Amino acid sequence: MNRDAIQRHIDERLDAHVEHIQRWVRQPSVSWDNLGVEACAEVVAESYRGLGCQEVEIIEGRFHPGVWAYYDAGAPATIHSYCMFDTRTVTPVGWTHDPWGAELVPMGPHPKALVGRGAMGAKGPYVAFLNALSSIVAVEGTLPVNVMFLAEGEEIMGSPTYNAFVERYRDRLADVSLSYCATGSQGADGLVNLGLGLKGMIVLQLTASGAAWGHGPKSTIHSSAASLVDSPPFRLAQALATLTDADGRGCAVDGLRDLWPYRKPLGHEERELLDALGARFAGRDWRDVLPVGGSGNVDALNGGTEGIEPLLTFLYGPTFNVAGLWSGFLGPNTATIPFIVPGSASAMLDMRLVVEESPDEIIAMIRRHLDERGFADIEIEVYAAFSHSQTSPSDPAIQAALRTLEAWGAPADVWPIQAGGGPWTAVPNAIGVPCLRGGAIGGGSGAAVDEYLVIESGNGIAGLADAEKFHVDLLFNVARALEAGPAAMTNEA
Amino acid sequence: MNRDAIQRHIDERLDAHVEHIQRWVRQPSVSWDNLGVEACAEVVAESYRGLGCQEVEIIEGRFHPGVWAYYDAGAPATIHSYCMFDTRTVTPVGWTHDPWGAELVPMGPHPKALVGRGAMGAKGPYVAFLNALSSIVAVEGTLPVNVMFLAEGEEIMGSPTYNAFVERYRDRLADVSLSYCATGSQGADGLVNLGLGLKGMIVLQLTASGAAWGHGPKSTIHSSAASLVDSPPFRLAQALATLTDADGRGCAVDGLRDLWPYRKPLGHEERELLDALGARFAGRDWRDVLPVGGSGNVDALNGGTEGIEPLLTFLYGPTFNVAGLWSGFLGPNTATIPFIVPGSASAMLDMRLVVEESPDEIIAMIRRHLDERGFADIEIEVYAAFSHSQTSPSDPAIQAALRTLEAWGAPADVWPIQAGGGPWTAVPNAIGVPCLRGGAIGGGSGAAVDEYLVIESGNGIAGLADAEKFHVDLLFNVARALEAGPAAMTNEA
Repeated sequence: MNRDAIQRHIDERLDAHVEHIQRWVRQPSVSWDNLGVEACAEVVAESYRGLGCQEVEIIEGRFHPGVWAYYDAGAPATIHSYCMFDTRTVTPVGWTHDPWGAELVPMGPHPKALVGRGAMGAKGPYVAFLNALSSIVAVEGTLPVNVMFLAEGEEIMGSPTYNAFVERYRDRLADVSLSYCATGSQGADGLVNLGLGLKGMIVLQLTASGAAWGHGPKSTIHSSAASLVDSPPFRLAQALATLTDADGRGCAVDGLRDLWPYRKPLGHEERELLDALGARFAGRDWRDVLPVGGSGNVDALNGGTEGIEPLLTFLYGPTFNVAGLWSGFLGPNTATIPFIVPGSASAMLDMRLVVEESPDEIIAMIRRHLDERGFADIEIEVYAAFSHSQTSPSDPAIQAALRTLEAWGAPADVWPIQAGGGPWTAVPNAIGVPCLRGGAIGGGSGAAVDEYLVIESGNGIAGLADAEKFHVDLLFNVARALEAGPAAMTNEA
Repeated sequence: MNRDAIQRHIDERLDAHVEHIQRWVRQPSVSWDNLGVEACAEVVAESYRGLGCQEVEIIEGRFHPGVWAYYDAGAPATIHSYCMFDTRTVTPVGWTHDPWGAELVPMGPHPKALVGRGAMGAKGPYVAFLNALSSIVAVEGTLPVNVMFLAEGEEIMGSPTYNAFVERYRDRLADVSLSYCATGSQGADGLVNLGLGLKGMIVLQLTASGAAWGHGPKSTIHSSAASLVDSPPFRLAQALATLTDADGRGCAVDGLRDLWPYRKPLGHEERELLDALGARFAGRDWRDVLPVGGSGNVDALNGGTEGIEPLLTFLYGPTFNVAGLWSGFLGPNTATIPFIVPGSASAMLDMRLVVEESPDEIIAMIRRHLDERGFADIEIEVYAAFSHSQTSPSDPAIQAALRTLEAWGAPADVWPIQAGGGPWTAVPNAIGVPCLRGGAIGGGSGAAVDEYLVIESGNGIAGLADAEKFHVDLLFNVARALEAGPAAMTNEA
């Protein structure tokens, strides 16, 4: 490859590359608010067409469309590129810049940053990757690998259609030998997180309704008539109460209870990585290391606070959490009023698991548990159902990423698994290929307000040009590694 | 009194009287949203000063101020006038007029109506009453009774400070011999509802928090760390689950359980009124008569569907209802995101009771019930705590109201008790005086959008001028009745 020419191309076109990111950020795409996601799918499709993809197709999702595209480089190897183009909502207060303005402003230590919802999560880093691809194409005429793009606009909703998207293109994706999720993953200290795996994730909405129950009202009535009916939120509370121990802790779901607390047997390579992480944080309070909001935000940790146990609990321990409850009156400033009997009540159940059982099996256990206790009326809507996935640190693509980081002088924290999870494991598990997520330089802030992507850096984070140049190197290194032969995926130790 | 001159005064000043209502409606006062309530207290105080009250005082409430005022007419009798000057919120969509515009427009069958939030609930009908008082003062020089005004800006919140307001002025209110709540109460059929009592009302916010529990996070964290902490919404669900039977119905609170279902012994007068109501609705499906949203909205009624039983359940049956649940993610379009562990979870518990026990005793039972089951960490915040109250149909003030209605040709539905409840029973119970609520002509619509007060009527409802003239007659008739001697209040059958 003509590395110098590609790097020069990136430098010369940097303004256009920034405008490309601005085009994405200026198109609102808040999936939960049903704001602009359809229009954003068009923006995404336009980018794929601009890159030169031979196939670009907008596909229907449960709530919002996705985009399939294929760049046939005539190369021996093919990768899958994951993309989310929806964003979280714009919280009503606190932005000092237009969240859809994509303004270029100084931000913290950085002389220039692009501010807006989605700038960091995840439009900015992804478009930086697309910019790198287009510079390669401009100089080389094509890419070093074929790329199958599969983008969704429902990630913040739990990616409820992504499995179906993967199923739809399963025959095509069979050619893939690496699933790549381009994200900026560089902390303020310059350190890059490279994750070798993710927990599985299940997100379920449980709903009690007067209609299904037969006792409460079907839609909201005034609570002066509450003596005549029953209250669906109490029905939901009773159903939820069967799912945990009587004090609200643990998991009491039949079948799942036996798996709690789950501890995956750890292989030698994995244990070494964990020991390295443990040593790096030795002597610190785990509550200030792990993402629990600091020692001021939690009195105690499940798994204790001593030794490596909290880290293992964090990375491998199952979660069984209610992320949200809503019914009727939702508190101050919510455009609702009290003095009602609500027609329904819902809870969002969120699980992160490293277990043998498939998400479908887990969901069936919860369904059966409720049915057997007389709660057949509780509706379960699946928002996320993804298994965990892990790639060996000796996988050739991972090794290529580590070599690229080394060449760029960017130290990497290698995590054998990460506590998050979601659609990134869908293709790896469906096709049986490794997943490379994170491990790229560049970054910014994904904070609730004034979210930004670093364009010109004032500290150890790479600016946009270097982030794109890194992607060029990474793609060529990965292409070489993949040509050397298919990688092994370790789903187990 | 110079009835003709007062009526002429109302006709001549009607534009100014409408402007008076507009002044109140144009000042937003949404208590839950903390919008404009303080400014509205000033508008209320200005009206009391304009009427000629010798005392006007703005007083501090838990969330928003109230207003005390006294009009000393040198009359033998004194009444208490209840006023709420807060409103529910403006729902985000659906208004065809500015909710704070107080525009005068044709509406349904009516040639002229005043549209805006609070137009009907409850600013419009109350200012119509104040307009009537000012016309009496203009013609007669003073009022036929002394009036102690006690206004609040927290009614939609459950009137959390009204008991304290009453306590603060208890010595003054001791002179009161009637509590009057001026509302428009005329249905589209011209029929006026006259209620002789109200259920008690208790509204409690129950909150489970990581801080009090010691297991969950104190403030929101990402749910990828949920294996390290516990989930406050599950804690709330367990606490709520102890409060009902295992299927989510009934009330299982120690002490309260024994009172369920409560049925007040009915006296002869009361039974006659109930039989009259029962006869009026005979042959109709109670689900289409009682405010449960119609037979399409409820499959069955507690208390059955036969005979007078559903009516008795509606009027005397205790309620134990969750009016709202909220924690973390609140569903679509709520500016929240899932994938979190919330720091707290809350439920709004709403009870309507006709029982011997005081609200304080009931609340103590719930506290004790939770404590004894290990839920001492569940915080209880009291938003409403009012006992039931009933006035005998033979009470002189009630008789005066019935005579006034008869003279105006307005048929009255007399309800021995109404299923609603709230601050209107505070003064009657504290001082031991009867309550007159409703029983005035005039009306409109309190719908969620395009709420309006009828100014010029196109059907059987009184327009503004007649509503005000009715208030003049009512006040003189009531004054005469009160001078004849103190009324008896029956809190029991």
